[in-house]
Amino acid sequence: MKLVRYGNPGKEKPGLVDADGRIRDLSGVVPDLGPAQLSAASLAKLRKLNPAKLPLVRGTPRYGCPVNNVGKFVAIGLNYSDHAAEAGMPIPKEPVVFMKATTSLQGPNDDVMLPKNSVKGDWEVELAIIIGTRARYVPKTGGARLRAGYAICNDVSEREFQLERGPQWDKGKGCDTFGPVGPWLVTPDEIPNVHRPGMWLDVNGERMQTGNTKTMIFNVPTIVSYLSQFMTLMPGDIITTGTPPGVGLGMKPPKFLKKGDVMTLGIEGLGEQRQRVVPFKL
Amino acid sequence: MKLVRYGNPGKEKPGLVDADGRIRDLSGVVPDLGPAQLSAASLAKLRKLNPAKLPLVRGTPRYGCPVNNVGKFVAIGLNYSDHAAEAGMPIPKEPVVFMKATTSLQGPNDDVMLPKNSVKGDWEVELAIIIGTRARYVPKTGGARLRAGYAICNDVSEREFQLERGPQWDKGKGCDTFGPVGPWLVTPDEIPNVHRPGMWLDVNGERMQTGNTKTMIFNVPTIVSYLSQFMTLMPGDIITTGTPPGVGLGMKPPKFLKKGDVMTLGIEGLGEQRQRVVPFKL
Repeated sequence: MKLVRYGNPGKEKPGLVDADGRIRDLSGVVPDLGPAQLSAASLAKLRKLNPAKLPLVRGTPRYGCPVNNVGKFVAIGLNYSDHAAEAGMPIPKEPVVFMKATTSLQGPNDDVMLPKNSVKGDWEVELAIIIGTRARYVPKTGGARLRAGYAICNDVSEREFQLERGPQWDKGKGCDTFGPVGPWLVTPDEIPNVHRPGMWLDVNGERMQTGNTKTMIFNVPTIVSYLSQFMTLMPGDIITTGTPPGVGLGMKPPKFLKKGDVMTLGIEGLGEQRQRVVPFKL
Repeated sequence: MKLVRYGNPGKEKPGLVDADGRIRDLSGVVPDLGPAQLSAASLAKLRKLNPAKLPLVRGTPRYGCPVNNVGKFVAIGLNYSDHAAEAGMPIPKEPVVFMKATTSLQGPNDDVMLPKNSVKGDWEVELAIIIGTRARYVPKTGGARLRAGYAICNDVSEREFQLERGPQWDKGKGCDTFGPVGPWLVTPDEIPNVHRPGMWLDVNGERMQTGNTKTMIFNVPTIVSYLSQFMTLMPGDIITTGTPPGVGLGMKPPKFLKKGDVMTLGIEGLGEQRQRVVPFKL
Protein backbone atom coordinates (compact mmCIF):
# COMPACT_ATOMS: atom_id res chain seq x y z
CA MET A 1 0.00 0.00 0.00
CA LYS A 2 1.25 3.46 -0.98
CA LEU A 3 -0.10 6.34 1.07
CA VAL A 4 0.24 10.00 0.20
CA ARG A 5 -0.71 13.43 1.38
CA TYR A 6 -1.62 15.60 -1.59
CA GLY A 7 -2.58 19.22 -2.10
CA ASN A 8 -1.20 22.63 -1.25
CA PRO A 9 1.21 23.09 1.67
CA GLY A 10 -0.65 22.98 4.96
CA LYS A 11 -3.87 21.84 3.23
CA GLU A 12 -2.85 18.31 2.28
CA LYS A 13 -5.45 15.55 2.19
CA PRO A 14 -4.74 11.86 2.75
CA GLY A 15 -4.73 9.59 -0.27
CA LEU A 16 -3.94 6.12 -1.46
CA VAL A 17 -2.23 5.21 -4.72
CA ASP A 18 -4.20 2.62 -6.66
CA ALA A 19 -2.84 -0.17 -8.87
CA ASP A 20 -2.83 2.20 -11.85
CA GLY A 21 -0.79 4.80 -9.99
CA ARG A 22 -3.72 7.17 -9.55
CA ILE A 23 -4.45 8.91 -6.26
CA ARG A 24 -7.65 7.92 -4.47
CA ASP A 25 -8.97 10.35 -1.87
CA LEU A 26 -8.92 8.98 1.68
CA SER A 27 -10.27 12.09 3.36
CA GLY A 28 -13.68 10.46 3.82
CA VAL A 29 -12.03 7.63 5.72
CA VAL A 30 -9.30 9.27 7.80
CA PRO A 31 -8.80 12.97 8.61
CA ASP A 32 -5.09 12.92 7.79
CA LEU A 33 -2.07 10.63 7.78
CA GLY A 34 -0.40 11.28 11.08
CA PRO A 35 0.49 9.46 14.30
CA ALA A 36 -3.09 8.26 14.89
CA GLN A 37 -3.35 6.58 11.48
CA LEU A 38 -0.07 4.66 11.42
CA SER A 39 -0.57 1.75 13.81
CA ALA A 40 -0.68 -1.75 12.33
CA ALA A 41 -4.41 -1.90 13.14
CA SER A 42 -5.14 1.44 11.46
CA LEU A 43 -3.15 0.49 8.38
CA ALA A 44 -4.92 -2.88 8.20
CA LYS A 45 -8.25 -1.03 7.99
CA LEU A 46 -7.00 1.05 5.07
CA ARG A 47 -5.70 -2.06 3.37
CA LYS A 48 -9.19 -3.57 3.41
CA LEU A 49 -10.63 -0.69 1.40
CA ASN A 50 -11.42 -1.19 -2.26
CA PRO A 51 -9.48 1.62 -3.98
CA ALA A 52 -11.90 1.59 -6.92
CA LYS A 53 -14.64 2.74 -4.56
CA LEU A 54 -12.67 5.72 -3.29
CA PRO A 55 -12.98 9.06 -5.12
CA LEU A 56 -10.44 9.45 -7.88
CA VAL A 57 -8.24 12.54 -7.53
CA ARG A 58 -7.97 14.30 -10.88
CA GLY A 59 -5.03 16.30 -12.19
CA THR A 60 -1.52 16.16 -10.82
CA PRO A 61 -1.61 17.58 -7.33
CA ARG A 62 1.49 18.40 -5.32
CA TYR A 63 2.66 15.76 -2.87
CA GLY A 64 3.34 16.78 0.72
CA CYS A 65 5.41 14.89 3.25
CA PRO A 66 3.40 11.64 3.58
CA VAL A 67 3.19 11.98 7.38
CA ASN A 68 1.82 14.95 9.28
CA ASN A 69 2.61 16.00 12.84
CA VAL A 70 6.01 14.33 12.93
CA GLY A 71 7.31 14.48 16.50
CA LYS A 72 10.93 13.54 15.84
CA PHE A 73 13.03 13.50 12.68
CA VAL A 74 16.06 11.43 13.63
CA ALA A 75 19.00 10.73 11.36
CA ILE A 76 21.83 8.23 11.25
CA GLY A 77 25.19 9.51 10.03
CA LEU A 78 28.00 7.72 8.19
CA ASN A 79 25.99 4.52 7.78
CA TYR A 80 27.64 3.39 4.53
CA SER A 81 31.34 2.68 4.89
CA ASP A 82 32.28 4.22 1.51
CA HIS A 83 30.46 7.41 2.45
CA ALA A 84 32.26 7.60 5.80
CA ALA A 85 35.54 7.31 3.86
CA GLU A 86 34.63 10.06 1.38
CA ALA A 87 33.60 12.34 4.26
CA GLY A 88 36.99 11.75 5.88
CA MET A 89 35.36 10.23 8.97
CA PRO A 90 36.13 6.94 10.72
CA ILE A 91 33.69 4.06 10.21
CA PRO A 92 31.47 4.29 13.27
CA LYS A 93 31.53 1.53 15.88
CA GLU A 94 27.89 2.19 16.68
CA PRO A 95 25.27 4.34 14.94
CA VAL A 96 25.93 8.09 14.85
CA VAL A 97 22.67 9.81 15.82
CA PHE A 98 21.70 13.39 15.10
CA MET A 99 18.40 15.18 14.65
CA LYS A 100 16.91 17.19 11.83
CA ALA A 101 14.48 19.97 12.79
CA THR A 102 10.89 18.96 12.08
CA THR A 103 10.53 22.33 10.31
CA SER A 104 12.89 21.01 7.61
CA LEU A 105 10.27 18.48 6.42
CA GLN A 106 8.56 19.12 3.11
CA GLY A 107 7.10 17.43 0.06
CA PRO A 108 9.30 15.34 -2.23
CA ASN A 109 9.22 17.77 -5.17
CA ASP A 110 9.16 21.11 -3.34
CA ASP A 111 12.01 23.53 -4.00
CA VAL A 112 15.06 23.22 -1.77
CA MET A 113 16.06 26.67 -0.55
CA LEU A 114 19.69 27.49 0.09
CA PRO A 115 19.84 29.46 3.34
CA LYS A 116 21.31 32.97 3.20
CA ASN A 117 25.11 32.80 3.03
CA SER A 118 25.02 29.12 2.16
CA VAL A 119 27.96 28.05 0.01
CA LYS A 120 28.14 24.32 0.71
CA GLY A 121 24.69 22.83 0.10
CA ASP A 122 24.85 19.08 -0.51
CA TRP A 123 22.61 16.10 -1.24
CA GLU A 124 22.08 12.69 0.39
CA VAL A 125 19.62 10.10 -0.92
CA GLU A 126 18.42 7.99 2.01
CA LEU A 127 15.92 5.34 3.02
CA ALA A 128 13.60 6.70 5.71
CA ILE A 129 11.71 4.56 8.20
CA ILE A 130 8.34 5.76 9.48
CA ILE A 131 7.40 4.50 12.92
CA GLY A 132 3.86 3.26 13.46
CA THR A 133 3.80 2.19 17.10
CA ARG A 134 5.24 3.59 20.32
CA ALA A 135 8.42 1.69 21.12
CA ARG A 136 11.18 1.58 23.71
CA TYR A 137 13.95 -1.00 24.19
CA VAL A 138 13.03 -2.93 21.06
CA PRO A 139 14.96 -6.18 20.56
CA LYS A 140 16.87 -6.31 17.27
CA THR A 141 14.63 -9.10 16.08
CA GLY A 142 11.34 -7.60 17.21
CA GLY A 143 10.82 -4.28 15.48
CA ALA A 144 9.18 -5.21 12.17
CA ARG A 145 5.64 -4.53 13.34
CA LEU A 146 6.65 -1.13 14.67
CA ARG A 147 7.43 0.16 11.20
CA ALA A 148 4.48 1.76 9.40
CA GLY A 149 6.50 2.04 6.23
CA TYR A 150 9.35 3.50 4.27
CA ALA A 151 9.94 6.56 2.11
CA ILE A 152 12.73 8.33 0.29
CA CYS A 153 14.39 11.18 2.19
CA ASN A 154 16.86 13.66 0.74
CA ASP A 155 18.96 14.51 3.81
CA VAL A 156 19.97 17.90 2.40
CA SER A 157 22.97 19.26 4.29
CA GLU A 158 24.95 22.50 4.45
CA ARG A 159 28.50 21.33 5.02
CA GLU A 160 29.91 24.62 6.26
CA PHE A 161 27.09 24.96 8.79
CA GLN A 162 27.42 21.27 9.70
CA LEU A 163 31.18 20.84 9.97
CA GLU A 164 32.92 24.21 10.22
CA ARG A 165 30.80 26.08 12.73
CA GLY A 166 31.15 24.00 15.88
CA PRO A 167 31.20 20.35 16.87
CA GLN A 168 27.53 19.50 16.38
CA TRP A 169 25.93 18.81 13.02
CA ASP A 170 22.28 19.71 13.67
CA LYS A 171 22.53 23.31 12.45
CA GLY A 172 23.66 22.19 9.00
CA LYS A 173 21.06 19.45 8.77
CA GLY A 174 17.82 21.03 9.88
CA CYS A 175 17.44 24.13 7.70
CA ASP A 176 14.00 24.76 6.22
CA THR A 177 13.39 22.57 3.14
CA PHE A 178 16.32 20.26 3.99
CA GLY A 179 14.02 17.28 4.57
CA PRO A 180 12.04 16.31 1.45
CA VAL A 181 10.23 13.04 2.25
CA GLY A 182 8.03 10.97 -0.07
CA PRO A 183 6.33 10.84 -2.50
CA TRP A 184 4.75 7.86 -0.75
CA LEU A 185 4.73 6.10 2.55
CA VAL A 186 5.13 2.52 1.30
CA THR A 187 3.99 -0.11 3.76
CA PRO A 188 6.42 -2.96 4.53
CA ASP A 189 4.34 -5.62 2.75
CA GLU A 190 5.38 -3.99 -0.55
CA ILE A 191 9.07 -4.16 0.35
CA PRO A 192 9.76 -7.82 1.13
CA ASN A 193 13.43 -7.11 1.77
CA VAL A 194 14.29 -3.58 2.79
CA HIS A 195 17.99 -4.35 2.41
CA ARG A 196 17.80 -4.94 -1.32
CA PRO A 197 16.54 -1.76 -3.06
CA GLY A 198 18.95 0.19 -5.19
CA MET A 199 19.13 3.97 -4.79
CA TRP A 200 20.46 6.82 -6.87
CA LEU A 201 20.70 10.59 -7.04
CA ASP A 202 21.39 12.88 -10.02
CA VAL A 203 22.21 16.57 -10.09
CA ASN A 204 21.22 18.20 -13.38
CA GLY A 205 20.87 14.76 -14.88
CA GLU A 206 24.36 13.65 -13.95
CA ARG A 207 24.57 10.57 -11.72
CA MET A 208 26.18 11.45 -8.38
CA GLN A 209 25.11 8.66 -6.03
CA THR A 210 24.54 5.01 -6.78
CA GLY A 211 24.00 2.70 -3.87
CA ASN A 212 22.04 -0.07 -2.35
CA THR A 213 20.53 -0.39 1.08
CA LYS A 214 22.25 -3.77 1.42
CA THR A 215 25.56 -1.99 2.11
CA MET A 216 24.34 -0.19 5.23
CA ILE A 217 26.72 -0.68 8.17
CA PHE A 218 23.80 -0.80 10.63
CA ASN A 219 20.65 -2.27 9.11
CA VAL A 220 17.05 -1.21 9.66
CA PRO A 221 16.22 -3.49 12.64
CA THR A 222 19.51 -2.56 14.29
CA ILE A 223 18.83 1.17 13.89
CA VAL A 224 15.31 0.96 15.33
CA SER A 225 16.50 -1.18 18.21
CA TYR A 226 19.49 1.06 18.87
CA LEU A 227 17.56 4.33 18.87
CA SER A 228 14.96 2.84 21.16
CA GLN A 229 17.66 2.42 23.81
CA PHE A 230 17.91 6.20 23.98
CA MET A 231 14.42 7.51 23.35
CA THR A 232 10.84 6.38 23.01
CA LEU A 233 9.96 6.14 19.34
CA MET A 234 6.50 7.48 18.62
CA PRO A 235 4.02 6.92 15.80
CA GLY A 236 4.91 9.33 13.01
CA ASP A 237 8.58 9.64 13.94
CA ILE A 238 10.79 9.55 10.86
CA ILE A 239 14.24 7.99 10.94
CA THR A 240 16.49 8.57 7.96
CA THR A 241 19.20 5.97 7.74
CA GLY A 242 22.28 7.42 6.08
CA THR A 243 23.53 7.87 2.56
CA PRO A 244 25.74 5.90 0.17
CA PRO A 245 28.82 7.50 -1.44
CA GLY A 246 28.69 10.29 -3.99
CA VAL A 247 27.89 13.42 -2.01
CA GLY A 248 29.36 16.74 -3.16
CA LEU A 249 31.60 17.00 -0.09
CA GLY A 250 33.43 13.85 -1.11
CA MET A 251 34.30 14.94 -4.65
CA LYS A 252 37.71 16.17 -5.65
CA PRO A 253 37.30 19.08 -5.78
CA PRO A 254 34.09 19.24 -3.71
CA LYS A 255 30.96 20.22 -5.61
CA PHE A 256 28.08 22.04 -3.94
CA LEU A 257 24.54 23.04 -4.84
CA LYS A 258 23.89 26.31 -6.60
CA LYS A 259 20.74 28.16 -7.59
CA GLY A 260 19.06 26.49 -10.55
CA ASP A 261 20.39 23.00 -9.92
CA VAL A 262 17.89 20.16 -10.07
CA MET A 263 18.22 17.09 -7.86
CA THR A 264 16.43 13.90 -8.89
CA LEU A 265 16.62 10.84 -6.72
CA GLY A 266 14.96 7.51 -6.22
CA ILE A 267 14.89 4.23 -4.36
CA GLU A 268 13.50 1.08 -5.96
CA GLY A 269 9.89 0.55 -4.89
CA LEU A 270 9.69 3.93 -3.16
CA GLY A 271 9.35 6.22 -6.18
CA GLU A 272 11.29 9.31 -7.11
CA GLN A 273 11.80 12.88 -5.96
CA ARG A 274 12.75 16.03 -7.86
CA GLN A 275 13.82 19.31 -6.29
CA ARG A 276 14.90 22.60 -7.83
CA VAL A 277 17.49 24.54 -5.86
CA VAL A 278 16.47 28.14 -5.20
CA PRO A 279 17.69 31.01 -3.04
CA PHE A 280 16.08 31.47 0.35
CA LYS A 281 12.81 33.33 0.38
CA LEU A 282 10.54 34.01 3.34
CA MET B 1 1.85 36.28 34.13
CA LYS B 2 2.64 32.72 35.15
CA LEU B 3 1.01 29.99 33.06
CA VAL B 4 0.92 26.32 33.94
CA ARG B 5 -0.40 23.02 32.73
CA TYR B 6 -1.61 20.98 35.69
CA GLY B 7 -2.99 17.50 36.16
CA ASN B 8 -2.02 13.95 35.34
CA PRO B 9 0.37 13.21 32.47
CA GLY B 10 -1.40 13.54 29.14
CA LYS B 11 -4.49 15.04 30.82
CA GLU B 12 -3.09 18.43 31.80
CA LYS B 13 -5.33 21.48 31.83
CA PRO B 14 -4.21 25.05 31.30
CA GLY B 15 -3.97 27.30 34.31
CA LEU B 16 -2.82 30.66 35.53
CA VAL B 17 -1.06 31.36 38.82
CA ASP B 18 -2.75 34.17 40.74
CA ALA B 19 -1.11 36.77 42.98
CA ASP B 20 -1.43 34.42 45.96
CA GLY B 21 0.33 31.61 44.12
CA ARG B 22 -2.86 29.59 43.62
CA ILE B 23 -3.73 27.95 40.33
CA ARG B 24 -6.77 29.29 38.48
CA ASP B 25 -8.32 27.04 35.85
CA LEU B 26 -8.04 28.41 32.31
CA SER B 27 -9.71 25.48 30.60
CA GLY B 28 -12.90 27.47 30.10
CA VAL B 29 -10.89 30.09 28.23
CA VAL B 30 -8.33 28.13 26.17
CA PRO B 31 -8.27 24.41 25.38
CA ASP B 32 -4.59 24.04 26.26
CA LEU B 33 -1.31 25.95 26.32
CA GLY B 34 0.32 25.12 23.03
CA PRO B 35 1.46 26.81 19.84
CA ALA B 36 -1.94 28.43 19.19
CA GLN B 37 -2.06 30.11 22.60
CA LEU B 38 1.42 31.65 22.72
CA SER B 39 1.29 34.59 20.33
CA ALA B 40 1.57 38.08 21.81
CA ALA B 41 -2.11 38.66 20.95
CA SER B 42 -3.25 35.43 22.62
CA LEU B 43 -1.21 36.13 25.72
CA ALA B 44 -2.58 39.69 25.86
CA LYS B 45 -6.09 38.25 26.02
CA LEU B 46 -5.16 36.02 28.96
CA ARG B 47 -3.54 38.99 30.68
CA LYS B 48 -6.81 40.87 30.60
CA LEU B 49 -8.61 38.18 32.57
CA ASN B 50 -9.40 38.78 36.22
CA PRO B 51 -7.84 35.77 37.97
CA ALA B 52 -10.27 36.08 40.87
CA LYS B 53 -13.10 35.26 38.46
CA LEU B 54 -11.47 32.07 37.22
CA PRO B 55 -12.20 28.77 39.03
CA LEU B 56 -9.76 28.10 41.85
CA VAL B 57 -7.94 24.77 41.54
CA ARG B 58 -7.93 22.98 44.87
CA GLY B 59 -5.26 20.66 46.21
CA THR B 60 -1.75 20.40 44.92
CA PRO B 61 -1.92 18.99 41.42
CA ARG B 62 1.09 17.84 39.46
CA TYR B 63 2.60 20.31 37.04
CA GLY B 64 3.22 19.24 33.46
CA CYS B 65 5.53 20.86 30.97
CA PRO B 66 3.92 24.31 30.62
CA VAL B 67 3.74 24.00 26.80
CA ASN B 68 2.05 21.21 24.88
CA ASN B 69 2.78 20.06 21.32
CA VAL B 70 6.35 21.33 21.30
CA GLY B 71 7.68 21.03 17.74
CA LYS B 72 11.37 21.55 18.46
CA PHE B 73 13.42 21.35 21.65
CA VAL B 74 16.68 23.05 20.76
CA ALA B 75 19.64 23.40 23.09
CA ILE B 76 22.74 25.56 23.24
CA GLY B 77 25.90 23.89 24.51
CA LEU B 78 28.86 25.34 26.39
CA ASN B 79 27.24 28.75 26.77
CA TYR B 80 28.96 29.67 30.04
CA SER B 81 32.73 29.96 29.75
CA ASP B 82 33.44 28.33 33.13
CA HIS B 83 31.27 25.36 32.15
CA ALA B 84 33.11 24.95 28.84
CA ALA B 85 36.35 24.87 30.82
CA GLU B 86 35.09 22.25 33.30
CA ALA B 87 33.86 20.11 30.39
CA GLY B 88 37.31 20.30 28.83
CA MET B 89 35.91 21.98 25.72
CA PRO B 90 37.08 25.17 23.98
CA ILE B 91 34.99 28.31 24.46
CA PRO B 92 32.79 28.35 21.37
CA LYS B 93 33.23 31.09 18.77
CA GLU B 94 29.55 30.86 17.91
CA PRO B 95 26.66 29.03 19.60
CA VAL B 96 26.89 25.22 19.71
CA VAL B 97 23.47 23.89 18.69
CA PHE B 98 22.07 20.46 19.37
CA MET B 99 18.59 19.04 19.78
CA LYS B 100 16.82 17.22 22.55
CA ALA B 101 14.11 14.75 21.56
CA THR B 102 10.65 16.17 22.22
CA THR B 103 9.86 12.88 23.97
CA SER B 104 12.31 13.91 26.71
CA LEU B 105 10.00 16.72 27.86
CA GLN B 106 8.17 16.29 31.14
CA GLY B 107 6.86 18.14 34.16
CA PRO B 108 9.25 19.94 36.49
CA ASN B 109 8.84 17.55 39.42
CA ASP B 110 8.41 14.25 37.59
CA ASP B 111 10.95 11.51 38.30
CA VAL B 112 14.06 11.46 36.13
CA MET B 113 14.68 7.91 34.91
CA LEU B 114 18.20 6.69 34.35
CA PRO B 115 18.18 4.70 31.09
CA LYS B 116 19.22 1.05 31.25
CA ASN B 117 23.01 0.78 31.48
CA SER B 118 23.34 4.46 32.36
CA VAL B 119 26.35 5.17 34.56
CA LYS B 120 26.97 8.86 33.87
CA GLY B 121 23.71 10.74 34.40
CA ASP B 122 24.30 14.43 35.03
CA TRP B 123 22.39 17.66 35.74
CA GLU B 124 22.30 21.10 34.10
CA VAL B 125 20.14 23.96 35.36
CA GLU B 126 19.23 26.19 32.43
CA LEU B 127 17.07 29.11 31.37
CA ALA B 128 14.66 28.02 28.63
CA ILE B 129 13.06 30.38 26.13
CA ILE B 130 9.59 29.58 24.80
CA ILE B 131 8.88 30.93 21.33
CA GLY B 132 5.51 32.57 20.75
CA THR B 133 5.63 33.63 17.11
CA ARG B 134 6.96 32.08 13.90
CA ALA B 135 10.35 33.60 13.15
CA ARG B 136 13.13 33.39 10.60
CA TYR B 137 16.20 35.64 10.17
CA VAL B 138 15.44 37.66 13.30
CA PRO B 139 17.73 40.66 13.85
CA LYS B 140 19.59 40.58 17.16
CA THR B 141 17.67 43.63 18.30
CA GLY B 142 14.25 42.51 17.16
CA GLY B 143 13.34 39.27 18.85
CA ALA B 144 11.75 40.36 22.13
CA ARG B 145 8.17 40.11 20.90
CA LEU B 146 8.81 36.60 19.58
CA ARG B 147 9.36 35.22 23.06
CA ALA B 148 6.24 33.98 24.81
CA GLY B 149 8.17 33.47 28.01
CA TYR B 150 10.78 31.69 30.04
CA ALA B 151 10.98 28.59 32.18
CA ILE B 152 13.52 26.51 34.04
CA CYS B 153 14.87 23.49 32.18
CA ASN B 154 17.01 20.75 33.66
CA ASP B 155 19.04 19.67 30.62
CA VAL B 156 19.63 16.19 32.04
CA SER B 157 22.49 14.47 30.21
CA GLU B 158 24.06 11.03 30.07
CA ARG B 159 27.74 11.77 29.57
CA GLU B 160 28.78 8.35 28.34
CA PHE B 161 25.97 8.33 25.75
CA GLN B 162 26.76 11.96 24.85
CA LEU B 163 30.53 11.95 24.65
CA GLU B 164 31.89 8.41 24.43
CA ARG B 165 29.60 6.80 21.87
CA GLY B 166 30.25 8.81 18.74
CA PRO B 167 30.73 12.44 17.74
CA GLN B 168 27.17 13.70 18.18
CA TRP B 169 25.61 14.60 21.51
CA ASP B 170 21.89 14.11 20.80
CA LYS B 171 21.71 10.51 22.02
CA GLY B 172 22.91 11.49 25.48
CA LYS B 173 20.64 14.51 25.70
CA GLY B 174 17.25 13.31 24.53
CA CYS B 175 16.49 10.28 26.69
CA ASP B 176 12.98 10.05 28.11
CA THR B 177 12.56 12.31 31.19
CA PHE B 178 15.74 14.26 30.39
CA GLY B 179 13.83 17.48 29.79
CA PRO B 180 11.92 18.67 32.86
CA VAL B 181 10.51 22.12 32.04
CA GLY B 182 8.54 24.43 34.31
CA PRO B 183 6.82 24.77 36.72
CA TRP B 184 5.63 27.93 34.97
CA LEU B 185 5.87 29.68 31.66
CA VAL B 186 6.66 33.16 32.92
CA THR B 187 5.87 35.91 30.44
CA PRO B 188 8.62 38.44 29.72
CA ASP B 189 6.83 41.34 31.47
CA GLU B 190 7.61 39.60 34.80
CA ILE B 191 11.32 39.33 33.95
CA PRO B 192 12.44 42.88 33.21
CA ASN B 193 16.02 41.77 32.60
CA VAL B 194 16.48 38.15 31.60
CA HIS B 195 20.24 38.49 32.03
CA ARG B 196 20.06 39.10 35.74
CA PRO B 197 18.42 36.08 37.47
CA GLY B 198 20.55 33.88 39.64
CA MET B 199 20.28 30.11 39.22
CA TRP B 200 21.23 27.12 41.32
CA LEU B 201 21.03 23.34 41.49
CA ASP B 202 21.41 21.00 44.47
CA VAL B 203 21.81 17.24 44.56
CA ASN B 204 20.59 15.74 47.84
CA GLY B 205 20.62 19.21 49.36
CA GLU B 206 24.22 19.91 48.45
CA ARG B 207 24.82 22.92 46.23
CA MET B 208 26.35 21.87 42.91
CA GLN B 209 25.66 24.75 40.56
CA THR B 210 25.50 28.45 41.30
CA GLY B 211 25.30 30.80 38.39
CA ASN B 212 23.69 33.78 36.85
CA THR B 213 22.27 34.28 33.38
CA LYS B 214 24.38 37.43 33.09
CA THR B 215 27.47 35.30 32.45
CA MET B 216 26.10 33.62 29.29
CA ILE B 217 28.56 33.84 26.40
CA PHE B 218 25.73 34.29 23.91
CA ASN B 219 22.76 36.12 25.37
CA VAL B 220 19.07 35.49 24.76
CA PRO B 221 18.55 37.85 21.78
CA THR B 222 21.73 36.55 20.18
CA ILE B 223 20.62 32.92 20.56
CA VAL B 224 17.17 33.53 19.07
CA SER B 225 18.65 35.53 16.20
CA TYR B 226 21.37 32.95 15.60
CA LEU B 227 19.07 29.92 15.56
CA SER B 228 16.69 31.69 13.22
CA GLN B 229 19.47 31.81 10.61
CA PHE B 230 19.28 28.01 10.46
CA MET B 231 15.65 27.12 11.01
CA THR B 232 12.23 28.66 11.30
CA LEU B 233 11.33 28.99 14.96
CA MET B 234 7.73 28.06 15.61
CA PRO B 235 5.28 28.92 18.40
CA GLY B 236 5.84 26.42 21.19
CA ASP B 237 9.45 25.69 20.33
CA ILE B 238 11.61 25.52 23.44
CA ILE B 239 15.24 26.68 23.42
CA THR B 240 17.34 25.84 26.45
CA THR B 241 20.32 28.11 26.71
CA GLY B 242 23.19 26.32 28.42
CA THR B 243 24.32 25.73 31.96
CA PRO B 244 26.71 27.42 34.37
CA PRO B 245 29.56 25.47 36.03
CA GLY B 246 29.04 22.74 38.57
CA VAL B 247 27.94 19.70 36.59
CA GLY B 248 29.01 16.24 37.74
CA LEU B 249 31.24 15.71 34.73
CA GLY B 250 33.42 18.64 35.77
CA MET B 251 34.09 17.44 39.32
CA LYS B 252 37.33 15.83 40.38
CA PRO B 253 36.58 12.98 40.51
CA PRO B 254 33.40 13.20 38.39
CA LYS B 255 30.13 12.61 40.23
CA PHE B 256 27.09 11.13 38.52
CA LEU B 257 23.46 10.55 39.36
CA LYS B 258 22.38 7.39 41.10
CA LYS B 259 19.05 5.91 42.04
CA GLY B 260 17.51 7.75 44.96
CA ASP B 261 19.25 11.06 44.37
CA VAL B 262 17.10 14.17 44.48
CA MET B 263 17.82 17.18 42.28
CA THR B 264 16.38 20.55 43.27
CA LEU B 265 16.97 23.58 41.12
CA GLY B 266 15.73 27.08 40.59
CA ILE B 267 16.05 30.34 38.74
CA GLU B 268 15.02 33.64 40.32
CA GLY B 269 11.52 34.56 39.20
CA LEU B 270 10.95 31.24 37.44
CA GLY B 271 10.29 29.01 40.46
CA GLU B 272 11.85 25.72 41.43
CA GLN B 273 11.95 22.10 40.26
CA ARG B 274 12.50 18.88 42.19
CA GLN B 275 13.20 15.48 40.62
CA ARG B 276 13.86 12.09 42.18
CA VAL B 277 16.26 9.88 40.23
CA VAL B 278 14.83 6.41 39.57
CA PRO B 279 15.75 3.41 37.42
CA PHE B 280 14.16 3.14 34.01
CA LYS B 281 10.68 1.67 33.93
CA LEU B 282 8.40 1.29 30.91
